Amino acid sequence: MTERTTHALDVFMNPKSVAVFGSMLEGWFFGAGVVVKELLESGYKGSIYPVHPTARMVNGLKVYQDILDIEGTIDLAVIITSFKHVPDIIRKCGEKGVRAAVVVSDNFAESGSEGKKRQDDLTELAKAAGIRLIGPNTLGVFNVTDAFTTIPYEKGYNGIKNGPLGVITQTGMYGPQAVPLGEYAFGVSKIIDLGNMCDIDEVDCLEYLGNDPSTKVISLYAEHTLRPKRFLEVAGRISREKPILCLKGGRSPEAAQAMASHTGSMAGDDLLYEALFRQAGIIRVQEYEDLLDCAKTFISQPLPTGNRLGIITLTGAMGIACIDAAASAGLALGELSPESREKLAQIHPTLRGHPIDLGPASAANGIELFSFYTRCFDILMEDENIDCIYVNTYISSYMNPENYQGVLQHMSTKRSKPVVTWSYGPSSQAVRQLASLTEAQGIPFYTTTNHAIRTLGYMARYALWKSQRQ
Amino acid sequence: MTERTTHALDVFMNPKSVAVFGSMLEGWFFGAGVVVKELLESGYKGSIYPVHPTARMVNGLKVYQDILDIEGTIDLAVIITSFKHVPDIIRKCGEKGVRAAVVVSDNFAESGSEGKKRQDDLTELAKAAGIRLIGPNTLGVFNVTDAFTTIPYEKGYNGIKNGPLGVITQTGMYGPQAVPLGEYAFGVSKIIDLGNMCDIDEVDCLEYLGNDPSTKVISLYAEHTLRPKRFLEVAGRISREKPILCLKGGRSPEAAQAMASHTGSMAGDDLLYEALFRQAGIIRVQEYEDLLDCAKTFISQPLPTGNRLGIITLTGAMGIACIDAAASAGLALGELSPESREKLAQIHPTLRGHPIDLGPASAANGIELFSFYTRCFDILMEDENIDCIYVNTYISSYMNPENYQGVLQHMSTKRSKPVVTWSYGPSSQAVRQLASLTEAQGIPFYTTTNHAIRTLGYMARYALWKSQRQ
Repeated sequence: MTERTTHALDVFMNPKSVAVFGSMLEGWFFGAGVVVKELLESGYKGSIYPVHPTARMVNGLKVYQDILDIEGTIDLAVIITSFKHVPDIIRKCGEKGVRAAVVVSDNFAESGSEGKKRQDDLTELAKAAGIRLIGPNTLGVFNVTDAFTTIPYEKGYNGIKNGPLGVITQTGMYGPQAVPLGEYAFGVSKIIDLGNMCDIDEVDCLEYLGNDPSTKVISLYAEHTLRPKRFLEVAGRISREKPILCLKGGRSPEAAQAMASHTGSMAGDDLLYEALFRQAGIIRVQEYEDLLDCAKTFISQPLPTGNRLGIITLTGAMGIACIDAAASAGLALGELSPESREKLAQIHPTLRGHPIDLGPASAANGIELFSFYTRCFDILMEDENIDCIYVNTYISSYMNPENYQGVLQHMSTKRSKPVVTWSYGPSSQAVRQLASLTEAQGIPFYTTTNHAIRTLGYMARYALWKSQRQ
Repeated sequence: MTERTTHALDVFMNPKSVAVFGSMLEGWFFGAGVVVKELLESGYKGSIYPVHPTARMVNGLKVYQDILDIEGTIDLAVIITSFKHVPDIIRKCGEKGVRAAVVVSDNFAESGSEGKKRQDDLTELAKAAGIRLIGPNTLGVFNVTDAFTTIPYEKGYNGIKNGPLGVITQTGMYGPQAVPLGEYAFGVSKIIDLGNMCDIDEVDCLEYLGNDPSTKVISLYAEHTLRPKRFLEVAGRISREKPILCLKGGRSPEAAQAMASHTGSMAGDDLLYEALFRQAGIIRVQEYEDLLDCAKTFISQPLPTGNRLGIITLTGAMGIACIDAAASAGLALGELSPESREKLAQIHPTLRGHPIDLGPASAANGIELFSFYTRCFDILMEDENIDCIYVNTYISSYMNPENYQGVLQHMSTKRSKPVVTWSYGPSSQAVRQLASLTEAQGIPFYTTTNHAIRTLGYMARYALWKSQRQ
């Protein structure tokens, strides 16, 4: 990776001062007032200048009637007004020497041909004024690392964990008003919503997050790219160091048509995107939730050195489900070494095969279940024929999720192969509690076995791609 | 369907008297004592005879040392002992005139060649004694309709809703000790776990549930069938009236090998099963959770008369995700009639297309969101170009799940097309609450959009199959 130099996104992410344009209504869930409040509450160190023609005060801050009334310099403008006011604001920002603007306002290209014209005019205007734009029709940025946000919605909770996941998106659906990021145990560094993407695009964002030391894994929701060649160069370079997960919205021709009226984008042939992603080492995921859920394993687990899966379950049927899921995910059932088989037989005579089915052993020796788990886990962790591990736990009505604490702590100390988990039982609340305990130990939990194993499959494929390029 | 006649499963499901063999330990989570307790608590009307060589009393009932000491007749034996005692018990059951036995005991075919021999001997013995068997290595039956159960595990909750779903399974993973059936809003009629399936098989169970007036939808977990021709006949006949969902365990050759050591089964070529299922009109699902989750829509919603999907979302990106999901599921984006388009435009000028994206309209008129939902829902329900409907709701931090109550009640009164839902927001707890409210109105909720739409795809395919055979 090249040395850190100034990037167009720096000023969006770490402005020394920000002017916020729009309604300063307090206690309302959306608008400029929310941005001001969030910046104050998050401990933003820079200067905040609310701007509105009639408001006087918001959250104890003076409201300026005109940006030109402000004495200090302004790095970034956040514009949350009717589309009608945006051109004037941009013009004045130009006069004031503002370098960047997040245009939250909608009713641009996504609203039809007139809006498209408005957007083109706005783009020209900003370019002439020397202002880089994110948006329009965007939430803007959420820099968790440095506690800076332009997101105009109340999220309804505090305490998003600072961590390594950077999100680039062409939809607001990954913002903290839409996703329970406060419950995400693996941590977020930055979220950048590109909206209609009239200037700053996903390639700029990839470059930025590729160089961002706080970001280790990148999740991208993309409907299209306008710079496929540059996308390939940049993404292919970053993928050598940081995994990029991508959900491509609009695989079908009908979806492509709908997209045109959504962010004003034109979708290309999906096969072209598929080829682009494969060449760039991008991990293509399947659905909305995946960009956060699959990222958990990339964040918290080491890459596997092969595709041979080790499996611990409590029933034969789930073992079979694992093997089927593995086959779909490009993984193979690992063949245990003779030493492992011997060690398993010493633990319990029913432990004869792979998948390791703890069911019969635990039915005979319920009290030893947890020791079985840790010992079998160690066998898989030490077996040279196993590259990645799936562990299935169970919470019966006579068990408490905390009963697994020792097993989970033990598992969390062994970090040489990727591990994923799934659990089941008669109480979905108990299973959720175990999920939280598991993830608190840095071990990803999935709500279905297929999802858990599919994610290991993504890891194995990415690890292979990476190894072939080093 | 033929007139109701006596079926081999009747005595398993509605025995007038039952002898329970095994440990009578009270307060333990597994064993004969649990069965006795559950039968007493569930209000079973027949006679319960606990049998154990040394125990004297269990839950206030006399324990018999020998089945031959019992004066009354015995319909069904439930055997939860070491495998060693099973042959003797079966012999004595034969003497006593018992007609059916559930053999919970394990260590038969699933444990290797010796166990296979034991199982073959047991099968012969039972046949000679005129006793039909479920198992071995099974939980037996759970007849929710008539409150009779042989399941030897504490489930940890009461109040499974009596309803139309019948489950046939070759794994214990659908028992109430493994699945939160107490949270299943759509109701269960019967669960039959076949275990190693040495006698009563999935064809018998299909026949039984096909004729069971309480069962309207059948979910089947199958690893193999030993009677493919009869399976096709029976399943094909039942599918004309009742949908059969099937998860086939063991698609891959590696899984087939693992299955041999699980229930002693031999898997056939998956393509043969695929052809069998298609011909029989069976809806083949993908993963463990599907047999309950996909069944929800078949239980609660009418069949569609085509594959044209109507979509209500709150963001363009989710609309695109819906169209992609529809394409994967064999559904098409419905083209709204000119009348519908006109009605939409009257509701709000931003409602111009399909998917119906309530986002811009609700941003401008937040307070009217719920009226937008009901009016748009009615437009899709009334449009002749729409066959099935997906509705996406959202719980922001300033909303309460109960805010949707009016919308949900309204939706629940319109029942001419199948409807599925999905929701999102910054609090997963709030989303779960909305899910409960939604399902309390008889409308299925899914945790992902893909799953919701995939299920509508299953419905459309089944409806087509059915229409071609009537």
